[in-house]
Amino acid sequence: MNGAESLVHTLLESGVDTCFSNPGTSEMHFVAALDRIPGMRCVLGLFEGVVTGAADGYARMAGKPAATLLHCGPGLANGLANLHNARRANTPIVNIVGDHATYHRPLDAPLTADTEGWARGVSGWVRTAMDVKTVGADAAGAVQAAMTSPGQIATLILPSDTSWNPGGIVAKPLPRVPAPLAAPNQIDEAAAVLRRGGEGILLLLGGKALGEAGLALAHRISAATGCRLMAEGSNARVARGRGRVAVDRVPYVVDTAVKALAGTQQLILAGAKKPVTFFAYPNKPHTSVPEGAELHILARVEQDPVEALARLADALGVPDAAAPDYGPAPEVGRGKLTPESVAATVGALMPEGAVIADESVTYGRGFFPLTRSAAPHDWLNVLGGAIGGGPPMATGAAIGAPGRRVINLQADGSAMYTVQALWTQAREKLDVTTVIFSNRKYQILLGELANVGANPGRTALDMMDIGNPDIDWPKLSASMGVEGATADTAEGFADLLAHSLKRPGPFLIELLV
Amino acid sequence: MNGAESLVHTLLESGVDTCFSNPGTSEMHFVAALDRIPGMRCVLGLFEGVVTGAADGYARMAGKPAATLLHCGPGLANGLANLHNARRANTPIVNIVGDHATYHRPLDAPLTADTEGWARGVSGWVRTAMDVKTVGADAAGAVQAAMTSPGQIATLILPSDTSWNPGGIVAKPLPRVPAPLAAPNQIDEAAAVLRRGGEGILLLLGGKALGEAGLALAHRISAATGCRLMAEGSNARVARGRGRVAVDRVPYVVDTAVKALAGTQQLILAGAKKPVTFFAYPNKPHTSVPEGAELHILARVEQDPVEALARLADALGVPDAAAPDYGPAPEVGRGKLTPESVAATVGALMPEGAVIADESVTYGRGFFPLTRSAAPHDWLNVLGGAIGGGPPMATGAAIGAPGRRVINLQADGSAMYTVQALWTQAREKLDVTTVIFSNRKYQILLGELANVGANPGRTALDMMDIGNPDIDWPKLSASMGVEGATADTAEGFADLLAHSLKRPGPFLIELLV
Repeated sequence: MNGAESLVHTLLESGVDTCFSNPGTSEMHFVAALDRIPGMRCVLGLFEGVVTGAADGYARMAGKPAATLLHCGPGLANGLANLHNARRANTPIVNIVGDHATYHRPLDAPLTADTEGWARGVSGWVRTAMDVKTVGADAAGAVQAAMTSPGQIATLILPSDTSWNPGGIVAKPLPRVPAPLAAPNQIDEAAAVLRRGGEGILLLLGGKALGEAGLALAHRISAATGCRLMAEGSNARVARGRGRVAVDRVPYVVDTAVKALAGTQQLILAGAKKPVTFFAYPNKPHTSVPEGAELHILARVEQDPVEALARLADALGVPDAAAPDYGPAPEVGRGKLTPESVAATVGALMPEGAVIADESVTYGRGFFPLTRSAAPHDWLNVLGGAIGGGPPMATGAAIGAPGRRVINLQADGSAMYTVQALWTQAREKLDVTTVIFSNRKYQILLGELANVGANPGRTALDMMDIGNPDIDWPKLSASMGVEGATADTAEGFADLLAHSLKRPGPFLIELLV
Repeated sequence: MNGAESLVHTLLESGVDTCFSNPGTSEMHFVAALDRIPGMRCVLGLFEGVVTGAADGYARMAGKPAATLLHCGPGLANGLANLHNARRANTPIVNIVGDHATYHRPLDAPLTADTEGWARGVSGWVRTAMDVKTVGADAAGAVQAAMTSPGQIATLILPSDTSWNPGGIVAKPLPRVPAPLAAPNQIDEAAAVLRRGGEGILLLLGGKALGEAGLALAHRISAATGCRLMAEGSNARVARGRGRVAVDRVPYVVDTAVKALAGTQQLILAGAKKPVTFFAYPNKPHTSVPEGAELHILARVEQDPVEALARLADALGVPDAAAPDYGPAPEVGRGKLTPESVAATVGALMPEGAVIADESVTYGRGFFPLTRSAAPHDWLNVLGGAIGGGPPMATGAAIGAPGRRVINLQADGSAMYTVQALWTQAREKLDVTTVIFSNRKYQILLGELANVGANPGRTALDMMDIGNPDIDWPKLSASMGVEGATADTAEGFADLLAHSLKRPGPFLIELLV
């Protein structure tokens, strides 16, 4: 058994059975091993950003890591942006990167690069396999590291000779490290704040607290104590829709966020971090939390927030509380395409169990309220702010949640960074509906330019206008095997969305907004 | 004057007047400064790999660096692969990367990443501007560093507050550091080897030695002494065609390279490095240079190889020698599309002054001999082995060499990594003909899999087959504003190529090979 074979066997025994890949020469023995060993689903991406973003979306839905397979140096580099996003989402990924043979590296062949150095910026765990006999053990360690709470990227670098040499040994799965529990004083402090009561108590939820159980517990606490609930600005996965407790998110725009958090005097964090603004701006605050607000950490990001919420609910003795009834699902929108008519249409038509992969950026900032009484669904944000997370995340989510429809709400500018994801959706016949908000500009940057006090002239506008030429989205998706169509009214969108939900496989809808 | 304005003024005074950009929020003051200060041509790329690859192609043709403008962290990461290629090509680039405000970084906002760490792997010079008063001086230093022989990437990281704060000071251009000259003993040693004469002397040329003057000098030396001439496997820019001296390149495939260099007893390097194989393979050598061959360095990579060749020619007293006449230009190919019929057609039809941007990978390995008597042209390879260098390089070359037709000979799999370059070609109305070799597979990997002794099964073949679905290249390019068509015969190719050369602006030809 060679090193690559011991690696594949170990991954499978550790429960990793999906590999998103864009291999190169140094990964050929790994690919050959995949041939000989049944059980690993291999999914090809035509660009590494598709591979890493798909691994992010997959793990969020599957609840376990996928492996990636990337080429050395620049191959990894192309995947870094979506690994950065995955890092911010605390997504477990077993990130396998090939490299030159150990004895070839010193020769500085053209592809030689600082693979390990580039990996460090996104990985909680990095190891270069240096001996064929321990590649299996390294792989088991990578899976364990990836799954260590709250989830992280474990990068295993595989020099080609440790891959091809004979002498590989399959390693047993390592035990999963349970998420640490909140300490008693964390529960006591939050309970004391809530018992004292008064205005301005905000319970901010993040990570696993935004699953159905965490939200239900938070709602019980809120119903009994009167504290506000809110979610972080972007979240890996939020359980939403009928029967679930709806929470607003901390807004992206600084002034809006400051307003949303005004009056907060006690901030209790459950799996969330203290909000900071995405960017600094001249003469604006860099947190939306009012000065003087007191901070209480019920559960740190790596601690189990659901368990902490349960203990807090017990400590407070709060009674059960049913999720609020937010009324019937919205009706499909009519007339012009607006954020409201689009959100209503999505909310009206999405099937039960839908997965929303959201990289709608500016256009989608108000989608949350209008979809809270839709059918039960999961909502995934791109975290980390690296552009182009949406289409790959949708691709991976569809593989991690078979049988559920994925709706990718997608800004046009961002989609262009990783547009190759459409090809993978076509090849794998994934049930993904991509909705492109085709405003033909970097709308967010126009807002940011105003935010920094600049008044754009011709050159600046040209840098933010992605029309001239306009991108023809149905043609672009068709060129990669995904049928698509354009709508410029809410009714037209509703027709296309309903059509896409009835048919298997991917579909793209361009909305001229 | 704010920091961004002092930066733009300094770049212009230092001769940098072209900026390839994909800005984000932290770069808004730079963009605003570009608005207010005339003289900088700004070219938008819809993905950072387009930006950095274009900067590579531009500098090779313009002989001076472009600036880039990239977003912090992941924005830079998306550009690393083509910066890696540019590093291997010794291309000067002033790589400007925005970053969070100095006081915002410690807050670990979502986009915070190790921008400086990621930059180090590709940059000969990295500096983070920490004070608005010295941003101008930093920029002048970056231009000087980029132009330092043999050319390198100078990364200037610009925190947004050093960009927007008032107090910027324009810096004077710093003197250009001339390339160091070869030491007398280097000339003497090479001269002694050549005077001694005998079989098996190879003069290996790289870098600037492959310009018209260097090739002419090398030919004089070869004609007088009988030594062989050869070029490195991949080269930043080779002067070729009628009236120029043709040299073969060291082949990519190990066994072929070993054969090509067999019998070499004395290897003289002029701006080249000792050849090593691209990858290691089990039981194959990792250099194509025969064991026991003696190495002589006429000019190190950073030394001026043309000056060294001139001194060597003087030392040997070799007479002038006209470039050989390789016969008439080839005739256009007929019948089936083969590497030979394609090369003949390109050689027959390319106009004088054409620029060939070559990322043809497997299909184009034999293009050199068949184009040596074409009209005078320049041939650019992707160096570094990072996939997706071709379309951006062609884009930048067209901007760096206005009035000259660029022909991008392009593998299909590689083109998909940076396909967004077509949009920039359409927007800027660049005279680029893209020729896609659509074999619908990662052909190089099939070869590599065989090289490592593996026999591909279904899974492996799926990872190398990029058909299913087939990419429709004319549709893909049309979706981004570039007209295209498909040919499946040599005659069809000749018609389309001739058509594209007559019309201004970009065109794409898909060859079903």
